[in-house]
Amino acid sequence: MGSTKPLTGAGLRGQVAGKTALSTVGVSGSGLTYRGYDIKDLVEHCEFEEVAYLILKGKLPTRDELLAYKSKLKSLRRLPGELKSALENIPANAHPMDVMRTGCSMLGNLETELDFSDQEDAADRLLAIFPSIICYWYRYNHDGVRIDENTDDGSIGAHFLHMLHDETPKALHETVMNVSLILYAEHEFNASTFTARVCASTLSDMHSCITGAIGSLRGPLHGGANEAAMDMIAKFNGPDHAEREMLGMLERKEKIMGFGHAIYSESDPRNEIIKGWSEKLADDVGDSALYPVSVRCEEVMWREKRLFCNADFFHASAYHFMGIPTKLFTPIFVMSRVTGWAAHVMEQRADNRIIRPSAEYVGEAPRRVQPISERS
Amino acid sequence: MGSTKPLTGAGLRGQVAGKTALSTVGVSGSGLTYRGYDIKDLVEHCEFEEVAYLILKGKLPTRDELLAYKSKLKSLRRLPGELKSALENIPANAHPMDVMRTGCSMLGNLETELDFSDQEDAADRLLAIFPSIICYWYRYNHDGVRIDENTDDGSIGAHFLHMLHDETPKALHETVMNVSLILYAEHEFNASTFTARVCASTLSDMHSCITGAIGSLRGPLHGGANEAAMDMIAKFNGPDHAEREMLGMLERKEKIMGFGHAIYSESDPRNEIIKGWSEKLADDVGDSALYPVSVRCEEVMWREKRLFCNADFFHASAYHFMGIPTKLFTPIFVMSRVTGWAAHVMEQRADNRIIRPSAEYVGEAPRRVQPISERS
Repeated sequence: MGSTKPLTGAGLRGQVAGKTALSTVGVSGSGLTYRGYDIKDLVEHCEFEEVAYLILKGKLPTRDELLAYKSKLKSLRRLPGELKSALENIPANAHPMDVMRTGCSMLGNLETELDFSDQEDAADRLLAIFPSIICYWYRYNHDGVRIDENTDDGSIGAHFLHMLHDETPKALHETVMNVSLILYAEHEFNASTFTARVCASTLSDMHSCITGAIGSLRGPLHGGANEAAMDMIAKFNGPDHAEREMLGMLERKEKIMGFGHAIYSESDPRNEIIKGWSEKLADDVGDSALYPVSVRCEEVMWREKRLFCNADFFHASAYHFMGIPTKLFTPIFVMSRVTGWAAHVMEQRADNRIIRPSAEYVGEAPRRVQPISERS
Repeated sequence: MGSTKPLTGAGLRGQVAGKTALSTVGVSGSGLTYRGYDIKDLVEHCEFEEVAYLILKGKLPTRDELLAYKSKLKSLRRLPGELKSALENIPANAHPMDVMRTGCSMLGNLETELDFSDQEDAADRLLAIFPSIICYWYRYNHDGVRIDENTDDGSIGAHFLHMLHDETPKALHETVMNVSLILYAEHEFNASTFTARVCASTLSDMHSCITGAIGSLRGPLHGGANEAAMDMIAKFNGPDHAEREMLGMLERKEKIMGFGHAIYSESDPRNEIIKGWSEKLADDVGDSALYPVSVRCEEVMWREKRLFCNADFFHASAYHFMGIPTKLFTPIFVMSRVTGWAAHVMEQRADNRIIRPSAEYVGEAPRRVQPISERS
């Protein structure tokens, strides 16, 4: 065993573990860029499928390329019968992220990535099929219906909302889904992406990498903050109540989700964007509770703790205003982040060395096995 | 974003990424210890279930504890109907590691680890059920039979062989399975184990962590070397033919699997052990081809390249002599390594910080989004 470099920080914090051309976090512009483009600029001018193309293929598409790509994605929404059967066998009380993880893994048996030359197709298929997977399971096990996943909607966001609500979504909702999917698409070496890269470094297949990433995003320290935020704000019956309750939570040192970030120190560039759309949705539905509550939460956390809202906090109210059940918030994250994950897998493959760190041993000194009769 | 430590070696090689009390690799004794016990000592004195208990619970069991543990594991072999249905829906030409990954993920929907106080039970269940998962799928899709997974065999190795061959295995085979499962049980921060720890660091559930680890072990740079070794030696019709072919492969700089190791530099302590058992199995079946071929391969690689056999090389012939199909070699690795993976998950949870390294950005400088009509 060669000499090892000592542990410099738990969780590899601040330790460079590889190279990427996909995004910068907290470096330039408003704080988040995908392949050099600022997230604000992308949200303003692009559809999600355009951004997915950028992330997965390396450049923004021309109009023809975008049309062809959207048409391809539309053709990839179909669920194989074996996958439908597996989804029907997953109970209604299962964790929706377990459903996403299992759907991805099951697909890997049916449409195995046999060669890395298939990697872009494998990624596009996952991008197109994840909304079908979660909605098919959800509607079958909660509403007792077998949905038709082959809708004619032009975008991934509209496809998802259509299957969920059984009607073509209004334009505002399609727009907000579009924005939301762009905001969550890519974020450098976060834990789920790093999981995908470790898996990719063994030269495993795309479905294994994405399945592993979903499993990591499932953890409450990673995905799920928007669900936790929703659970909290739903309990507050107005801004003043929210303020009293939050002050109590802070005094009791309870964890409040949706604020602060491991990398950003001043603000999360995604918050301003989704907050604006949450306000528009509140106006649209005539909300006079959830949005003002959310704003007050933001004020209290900044005043008391100098903690800012991250991407997740106003996503909670935004999704809620569109009638999305809270338990489906993190699966939407998957529908978006699969672009970043898959692009990282391809990047890892293109310049690979197996990710195999060392450990500091803190266990027992060498010892002999005692005969079983002498153990206690 | 704080200051980051530069990339010191691709694949985090030599970089300490955390602490462990579970094993040492290449440090003391013959080179591999589990919780301080040398692997040779464990193989000589213990059953696999004893070693699994050591790894998962922290101490070698007393006789009563071992009996109770084996009895518990026996009671956990049953496949839920929904899982059987999913396995029946996976085609015969699927990758067996995709079957293992999907079986684990599906189980997570049916028997979700709701609280970390369930973690030992979740690990024991996976340890007990993996042989049932792979054999049920294999026998259903290859032999057209629905096996009864509730055999009365006393050990995990015998349970596996019994389901595979439809008869109680001979004592020699049960012993070799026992040895093999001990040898593969734990190996510090290899890529699959590190995958499990990254996932665990988000506080995700046990099934997500193990599912991710299976996906990483699936990669040809990690698991699968024993299968590749088998494919190679099966092509040689005698030692002299093997030598000629290997010299040709070396001259053409083809990759030869089953030799050398990322951490060990002189020898792999597991090789001597499994080689001895492969020889006994060869005697038992009256082999005069595969074992001598394997020995010649070992001699040629050492003479020509100073490369030693790792744990995988003589596992190929050993498994083959027991009538195990080559495609099931890596799933056996899972049946064993789940002990190490689960113990690492528990260790990560006990002293956790989310594993979130940084990346070196090597992409485009900041740029503006061009209108779609102006792109090329």
